[in-house]
Amino acid sequence: MKIRIYYEDTDIGGIVYHSKYINFCERARSELFFEKGLSPIFEDYHFVVKKLEADFIESAGLGEIIEIKTKVIEKKRASLLLEQNIYREKDEKLIFSMKVLLVCMKKDKIAKIPDYFLEVLK
Amino acid sequence: MKIRIYYEDTDIGGIVYHSKYINFCERARSELFFEKGLSPIFEDYHFVVKKLEADFIESAGLGEIIEIKTKVIEKKRASLLLEQNIYREKDEKLIFSMKVLLVCMKKDKIAKIPDYFLEVLK
Amino acid sequence: MKIRIYYEDTDIGGIVYHSKYINFCERARSELFFEKGLSPIFEDYHFVVKKLEADFIESAGLGEIIEIKTKVIEKKRASLLLEQNIYREKDEKLIFSMKVLLVCMKKDKIAKIPDYFLEVLK
Amino acid sequence: MKIRIYYEDTDIGGIVYHSKYINFCERARSELFFEKGLSPIFEDYHFVVKKLEADFIESAGLGEIIEIKTKVIEKKRASLLLEQNIYREKDEKLIFSMKVLLVCMKKDKIAKIPDYFLEVLK
Repeated sequence: MKIRIYYEDTDIGGIVYHSKYINFCERARSELFFEKGLSPIFEDYHFVVKKLEADFIESAGLGEIIEIKTKVIEKKRASLLLEQNIYREKDEKLIFSMKVLLVCMKKDKIAKIPDYFLEVLK
Repeated sequence: MKIRIYYEDTDIGGIVYHSKYINFCERARSELFFEKGLSPIFEDYHFVVKKLEADFIESAGLGEIIEIKTKVIEKKRASLLLEQNIYREKDEKLIFSMKVLLVCMKKDKIAKIPDYFLEVLK
Repeated sequence: MKIRIYYEDTDIGGIVYHSKYINFCERARSELFFEKGLSPIFEDYHFVVKKLEADFIESAGLGEIIEIKTKVIEKKRASLLLEQNIYREKDEKLIFSMKVLLVCMKKDKIAKIPDYFLEVLK
Repeated sequence: MKIRIYYEDTDIGGIVYHSKYINFCERARSELFFEKGLSPIFEDYHFVVKKLEADFIESAGLGEIIEIKTKVIEKKRASLLLEQNIYREKDEKLIFSMKVLLVCMKKDKIAKIPDYFLEVLK
């Protein structure tokens, strides 16, 4: 998934505001559903972020294009561990890397990941 | 209501990103409820923004404090017209002015403004 | 220009947070430059938003695609008046319409719009 | 430092969008400077986020007040490791905890933390 950096993503430092990379990773996770015509919210099931570890390696600037790559590291009954890497398109450099633990919820309770979600992640 | 400008409010231009002033005005409207221990969502009633006219007069920068003043211009059965002005604290200058038309909704339908909301606006 | 609605664009009301439509319009203005390999910042010249009038007609929800169309209404020496309309892709409905007055600045001073910018807007 | 949760901080899930807690922590770090009348940008020196580890324990909702507490875990020549915890005011529960590694930069290069910054952190 490719994303362009706009004004709203930058701050006074002239580059992307740090937490925005985490938003971009969330967009990439949601896009896995949207691009198949599906939704990340399914019969009261959805994922929440439980933990994340992020490395800010380099930065992206206004107008640049970044690419987010997502892979499943570990799949458990009610959780998923993903690795998401962001590359700057112009030089193909890795600029951000994150491990994120997602927990599946049904309304307010932890729940087994439904097959609907597992299909998307194949 | 006073608000401090943080990194996330600025962009590469070095000052507040333009639409953020509109967010600050929304915070000020919500704060009218919160400061009284109330909520801007009441039994499926809530307001939506229908129209706005905004003048961007000057700007605010990182770390500055701004003050938002809100007054009701016109009260109708199902709508409110507000004027919201933002002043920069350090020199007391008016930097942003907005007229915003809010419509009261009950779920998805336009509805008479409940007394609960009118009390707050007194 | 087409934009997908993600989680970060929505709020507790379940649809897009109102000022986000104004951000989407800004993205569309910047994209006019980016898609040509150019930048909206040129030798200390840039545009700032001076005034806007926005109508919030309908809303967009998570995962939906919207399309922004931009046209120049009036071109003056140092300013541009644009109309930007947002359509919901699924039913092609106009959901948001904005007139925005942009003023060209060179650093902190109002300046004649350089040819570099006028070329982009043709 | 206390922060109120507003509409713009929430998403369609009805609670705070996950990366916003990371923004709140950044506001708290900047506020350490602002409350003393100082700036987190000093003669081309500033901090950048290099790494973070975050635990999302519980959530905060619209209108709630949260409190952010920041402590220095480790101070090195050019970097700082901080722990930042967010508590929900109504029940004093820890809802978010983050370790963040900040690196001091002078323009684009890693630099020894100037005394100006060390004074603030005492």
